[in-house]
Amino acid sequence: MKLVVDAMGGDHGPAVTIPGAIEAVKAYPITIILTGDKNKIEKELSKYQYPKKQIEVLHCSEEITNEDKPVAAIRKKKDSSMVVGLNLVKEKKADAIISAGNTGALLAGGLFILGRIKGIDRPALATAYPTTKGASVLIDSGANADCKPRNFLEFGIMGEVYASKVLNIQNPKICTVNIGIEETKGNDVTKEAYQLCAKAKFNFGGNIEARDIPSGYADVIICDGFTGNIILKLTEGIASTIFGILKEEFTKNTLRKLAAGILKSGLKDFKKRFDYTEYGGAPFLGVEGNLIKAHGSSNAKAIKNAIRQAKAFVENNVVEEIFKEIDGLGED
Amino acid sequence: MKLVVDAMGGDHGPAVTIPGAIEAVKAYPITIILTGDKNKIEKELSKYQYPKKQIEVLHCSEEITNEDKPVAAIRKKKDSSMVVGLNLVKEKKADAIISAGNTGALLAGGLFILGRIKGIDRPALATAYPTTKGASVLIDSGANADCKPRNFLEFGIMGEVYASKVLNIQNPKICTVNIGIEETKGNDVTKEAYQLCAKAKFNFGGNIEARDIPSGYADVIICDGFTGNIILKLTEGIASTIFGILKEEFTKNTLRKLAAGILKSGLKDFKKRFDYTEYGGAPFLGVEGNLIKAHGSSNAKAIKNAIRQAKAFVENNVVEEIFKEIDGLGED
Repeated sequence: MKLVVDAMGGDHGPAVTIPGAIEAVKAYPITIILTGDKNKIEKELSKYQYPKKQIEVLHCSEEITNEDKPVAAIRKKKDSSMVVGLNLVKEKKADAIISAGNTGALLAGGLFILGRIKGIDRPALATAYPTTKGASVLIDSGANADCKPRNFLEFGIMGEVYASKVLNIQNPKICTVNIGIEETKGNDVTKEAYQLCAKAKFNFGGNIEARDIPSGYADVIICDGFTGNIILKLTEGIASTIFGILKEEFTKNTLRKLAAGILKSGLKDFKKRFDYTEYGGAPFLGVEGNLIKAHGSSNAKAIKNAIRQAKAFVENNVVEEIFKEIDGLGED
Repeated sequence: MKLVVDAMGGDHGPAVTIPGAIEAVKAYPITIILTGDKNKIEKELSKYQYPKKQIEVLHCSEEITNEDKPVAAIRKKKDSSMVVGLNLVKEKKADAIISAGNTGALLAGGLFILGRIKGIDRPALATAYPTTKGASVLIDSGANADCKPRNFLEFGIMGEVYASKVLNIQNPKICTVNIGIEETKGNDVTKEAYQLCAKAKFNFGGNIEARDIPSGYADVIICDGFTGNIILKLTEGIASTIFGILKEEFTKNTLRKLAAGILKSGLKDFKKRFDYTEYGGAPFLGVEGNLIKAHGSSNAKAIKNAIRQAKAFVENNVVEEIFKEIDGLGED
């Protein structure tokens, strides 16, 4: 299996993508193609011991930054680490690509270069959302701000494939997130989406309210990308605020500091449950190829986990499975 | 000042509305009209000592329950504690109404009985959202699932009046919650809303991402009621999940239990910051009258605080101020 890692992507570039890739080739029988600035990549590689046969470097003269405008960047920077990597997947020279780079550009590149799976109107980002039970799949977590009811059906199908094939959840429960559980609740789009999902082949669990997301009641949570983005970022904001307040309360005096010291491992376990690096990246589902978006602020461990995740997507033929499930639904 | 309390509303009815009303009349120079079942109300009243002149009871033969369909309930249950109370405000026999009853019915009653302020297309619920700085106003927190860009402008104006006149925040910063801070980000509605708000008279602070809500960066957060409901309920869900996990981690062994005992007051202070009862209820802004929706699960303290809040709305002529601010904008 050959996987491309966009070595220049993310806030930290080769400083994290290279050690992440090295940890992955040591752990799995895979080959990684690193796309990007040869000098920077080799300089970083030289710091480590690793199985040389499992890592290839493909020099690219350009780089897409977070400041670049997505569509223009994909069109103009033909020799960027991201575009070159996507073309390797398109041309079947690699089985998947992992990038922590500019999200908008990566999604645009996925659409333009890899193209959509026949029958999928809107490919979507699927993010693992930490719950008390483990993790739920949140789809769409930010690719499509405006959605039609039909798109919810596609999200349900793609989320089901991800949950059942990659996360090994048997007969995953798919729910729409809404402002009430009754089928008559919601905005115009979610009301119509409910009716479509109720007739779908997947295990539709109806609407859930946002307060029931953290409990893990639903294995797959479907929503438009605007709502998904609000859910992800609000969770991030609340978690970080709560950790901040706890720290403040627990360091107010010496006695509290002592007590908090005893609870340190408990607090650490607590924090770990919200650690996104455990879950790898967010696959962009519905495009003709395996594309994993790693978090921009990924560390080496997060990159390694995103690579592990990409490997699971390849092994489980996710693209093919989505095509099979969507086929027969008819075009929109 | 005369305020109506719907004595039958909420999960606990007279058992909390009566002691809440009694605490309020003891604290403030107001008269409260309790609408509802005379027998039940008087039985509850007889348990307390209170200034008799400040409490009136108005018997109603009907009651709107949480199971009632909102519009039908308002139309048919003419002698319900909620409809009778709304009519008292409509006929200027009372200055405001507080109800913890069926939210949908109360909003429908507000629209049908009190009517909209001229120039307001969509009245909206405004909820105090606890932040590290105190509280921000979240509007619309659930009344309108589908909104037009113009409605965001109205929410901004109404939120500004609430924040400046009632919460005494000078020149409050009004922000739209969106999936990116750039004005080009968002769905079709928020993109257009941004342009309208940028031209408004209020202090528009642009877009914020959901991760910045808990920090209190914005004094007033505007969004459609679907998004507002997701924000409120997800916050509730995450807070309760985190308290649950902390409890679990902190009681895993005896040593941890001891340490957690020392931190008890810190944890209590922490929990208090998320206590909705501190902030009263959610005013339904944009209707021709002061209407405060108290949380369905309100306790007596929450009812008392909602009454305090209603008093502040009356004293600060919120309805008139909204009319003045909206006037001149032109009809939609």
